[in-house]
Parts: sequence; structure tokens; C-alpha cells
Amino acid sequence: MKTYLECIPCFFKQALEATRIAGVDEVKQKEVIIELCRLIPNLSLEATPPEMGRSLYKLIKERTGAEDPFKEIKQRNNKFALSLYPNLKKKVEDSQDKILTAIILAITGNVIDYGAKSSLNIEEEINNCLNGNFDKFNKAIFDYPQFRDALNNSKTILYLGDNSGEIVFDRILIEEILKEKGEKKEIIFAVREKPIINDVLIEDAYMCGIDKIAKVISSGSDAPGTILKYCSNQFLQTYKTSNMIISKGQGNFETLSDEDRQIFFLFKVKCNVIAKEVLTYNKNCKVGDIILKGDKK
Amino acid sequence: MKTYLECIPCFFKQALEATRIAGVDEVKQKEVIIELCRLIPNLSLEATPPEMGRSLYKLIKERTGAEDPFKEIKQRNNKFALSLYPNLKKKVEDSQDKILTAIILAITGNVIDYGAKSSLNIEEEINNCLNGNFDKFNKAIFDYPQFRDALNNSKTILYLGDNSGEIVFDRILIEEILKEKGEKKEIIFAVREKPIINDVLIEDAYMCGIDKIAKVISSGSDAPGTILKYCSNQFLQTYKTSNMIISKGQGNFETLSDEDRQIFFLFKVKCNVIAKEVLTYNKNCKVGDIILKGDKK
Repeated sequence: MKTYLECIPCFFKQALEATRIAGVDEVKQKEVIIELCRLIPNLSLEATPPEMGRSLYKLIKERTGAEDPFKEIKQRNNKFALSLYPNLKKKVEDSQDKILTAIILAITGNVIDYGAKSSLNIEEEINNCLNGNFDKFNKAIFDYPQFRDALNNSKTILYLGDNSGEIVFDRILIEEILKEKGEKKEIIFAVREKPIINDVLIEDAYMCGIDKIAKVISSGSDAPGTILKYCSNQFLQTYKTSNMIISKGQGNFETLSDEDRQIFFLFKVKCNVIAKEVLTYNKNCKVGDIILKGDKK
Repeated sequence: MKTYLECIPCFFKQALEATRIAGVDEVKQKEVIIELCRLIPNLSLEATPPEMGRSLYKLIKERTGAEDPFKEIKQRNNKFALSLYPNLKKKVEDSQDKILTAIILAITGNVIDYGAKSSLNIEEEINNCLNGNFDKFNKAIFDYPQFRDALNNSKTILYLGDNSGEIVFDRILIEEILKEKGEKKEIIFAVREKPIINDVLIEDAYMCGIDKIAKVISSGSDAPGTILKYCSNQFLQTYKTSNMIISKGQGNFETLSDEDRQIFFLFKVKCNVIAKEVLTYNKNCKVGDIILKGDKK
């Protein structure tokens, strides 16, 4: 999808927040804002938002010297999500349709996001899930039968991770898929190559035990999404040859929504721009909705 | 008060919203955004936010050709508030301390604002007022005894208006002051000189009947606040000689909070920046709180 003009105020907001998390003073913060003012006029609205996000966070890294400002936050998110793991597992096990429950949990886990940090309350959302208040989540698009079909017909599944913390929820979905469909399935879990916001890295995948159930690979890129032209050959090979792709989060949706092949996008709608974009698929959609999108327009 | 770095994303948000209200296409909207990117690096954070707001809306006017994009909205707000007038009056008349009730209503009316448009729900806020749910409003600062004292000791009162619609609420407070304190008081009601966001102009004051109870003057300026260096001599004369000043809204607070003389600021906290600024006065404050501030730091 293209970048909307509404993304621009959000880039400034993110810039400010990230420089603060990096711990620099107001003078440095202002420098980043001014540098962003110089970048924006060259921004093509035809590019996807994570393309600009990539430039923005590169700039923040250069100006603040902070290689991975979200490192602590990521570790905290992983620990928090790991502490929920037993309850989440129980929730799935007690349910009728375990994969469906695991999907909804995985989408809810997508609320743990510092890029598109919104008014959504992480704990409240997760509690709604744990309490079984699934009715609270409006499913703006929910191509579950298509997801089931694809699962049945796929041997290799590429799972595109999004945020730290959230991957514990992904792990539960992957475990359910393997349990129900047997160990014949090969699942490859893709992480970002370099630190970008609170996006998942190899170390997070290990910390959250993803390596025990899936083959972990890197996208080869430092974009907060999957921009194919920046991805490694190894990743592109997997992308092309996998029978099914499960894509988590807004960033992966923003960068892959115009691709020709079928991709199952699982995410929580965290901003008005994404709500608008989903509306182009002729559905009602508002911030807070959950999406499982597998059909093309 | 000075401009906070957090104001910058908000300037971009406002720019986008105002160009849309002006009805121009995306190309023009982007032009305004790019021009704003050129303005920001020259912005002094020592200036008040309405100083930048003034430049921003001037730019929008130049680029879109729209002299008064909020005109219809202002008229709608005036009509909406006028329709509430009988109920608001009754609310005041049925109350024990009529001036106190009128003050709280006047502050609530400040929720009708398109500059600092926030997540606050106008109708909900006003309904809370009409239903007498005054407890819902946290009074972060409320110098009511000082306000009463000043009223008793003042013959001329300068009342700085803020937004259209909201002035119907101001009218009720002015009427109560005149009723309780007798017609000996002279009240001068100041409006903006030229269109700026949905701020009150002479025509709004007339539409809402302010001219029947107060002398209406213009600030002489087109800033969304009261920046004294841009005000007319006539206004400055009144500003200096009035015994009491009642200032409505965030914009007037932002521009006058560092002035030496006593000013009674009545406003609703509509953004985090203002909440932070109020915190410098050593009080708890969050978005949604109501303020009646008459004491200096």
C-alpha cells in the first residue's frame, strides 16, 4: 500500500518518541525533527510507509548513536508475553476450534507494537482475550475457511514475524498448526536482520523459543516490514517456494498487500490509515478491529 | 508558554485537517505539508504554539485560497450551542452557586475546538454537564475564591473569547456575573480580528448575542491566541486598564501564561502538552481536566 498524507504527522510523532527512548536531550531531539523535515519533501507517497520508517529510524540511529534503543523494551515485552504463555496455552486447549483460538490470540498479540502505538490498551486487549471476550473484537475481514484450506494444502509455511513479545503468541499458533497438522509441515519463521523499532530479531526468536518449533531465518532487511527489494536472496528463495505465507502485523501488510501471491495477513488495525486502507477492500473497518485477510481484492 | 517538540507532529496534523476542510486535493495538501517542513526548522521553541499556528494557517490560506475554511463549521457550532442555551440557563438557575455553575459550563464549552481537536467527545462532555455530572471533571487547578474576590473588586472586565459555539457558554457566564454583580460592571468581550481556525470573530459574537451584554472589540490580531505584539493599540489599552481579565481556552493560555498581571485562565486541558505545562505549576493534571487558574506560579 502507498503512504497516506496522514502518515506524515505520525512519522514526526514516532521520531520524537524514538529519540526519547534513545535517551538523548531536547537539542538532539530537535535535530532529528529538523532532519526529518528535510527528508519528507523527497518522500514518494507511492512508497510504502515502512520505506519511510526505515529511513527515519536509520536517521535516528545516526543522530543519537543508539544502535538498538528499543532493546530493553523488547526484552520486557518478551518476558511479559512469556509470563502469559501458560494461560494462553490453556485458553487454546480449552477451546473448541484450537487453531481459530490461536489465530485470534496471535492477532491480539499484535497489539504489542511501538511503531503504530495507538490508544489501544495492551493489557486490556490481552485480558479480553484471556477472559474469552472474543466478541469484543470486530472481525473486519476474516478469511478463516481460506486459511484452513491453505493449511491443509501446504507443506512449507513461511511465517513473517512482527514484534517482540507478540512472537510468543505466534509460537502458540505455530504449535497448534504443528499439533493439528502433524510434524510433516515445515515452518520457517522470518525475523528482521537489524534492530528496527521493537521488531523481532533472531535473539527474540530464541528468547521466546521459536527456534524449537520452526526454522528461524532473517529477512535480510532492516525495514519495519517486508520490502522485498531489500531482502536477502535466501529469504526471497523461501518467499517464492513456500506453499503458504502467514504475515503478521501492519508493517508486513503495508509492504506486501500489493503482491500478487496469496498471503494471509493477520493483524490488529492500529491506526486510521490502515482502517482506511482496509476499507478499500469494501469492508467496514475501524481502529481496534482484527483482520485475517487471505483473499485478494 | 514555550512550544514543546510534541507540538510539531500536531502542527502537521492540523495542517492536513485544515487543508481538507478547505476542500483542496491531495496535491495541494502535500504542498502545504512540504511548505510546513520548510517552516519548522526556523521555528523557535521559545515562541508560543499559537505563534507557529498563526504562520501555519496563513500558509494554508495562501496555498488553498480559502479565506475562512472553518466558516460553515463555526456557524454550525454557534447554532448547536444556541440550541443548548435554554437548558444551560436552566442548569445555572437551578444551581446553588450560579456563578460557579456558569464557570464550569463555560470551561466545558471550551471542548468545542478544532485546533486542539482531541479525543474528547463534545456531546458527551456537554451532556455530562447538563446532567449535572460535575464530578466527572477533575479540577486540576481551581482558583475559585480568587476569582470571586477579583469579581467583587473589579469594575471593568476584559473577557478574551476563544471559539465559536463556545461563546454561547461564555454569554451565560457573563449574564450571571452581570445579574449577581449588577449592571455596574462593564464587560468587554474580545474576538479575533481575522479568521483563524474556528476562533470567534465579530460575526460570531453578534450571532450568539454577546453584543447585547458586552462591548465587543477585536484583538486586532489573527493569531489563535492573544499575542500582545500583534494586537491593536485599542486592544492593548483595554488589556492594560481592565481591572480583571478572564481568558478562555488553550490558545489564550499558551500566549498569556507568562504575563506579569493576574489573568483568570478558564480552559479544558485538550492535549498532553498542556497537561505537562500545567504540571509545572505543581499540580496533577491530565487531558480532560478543567482549569480555573488565577494565581501565578
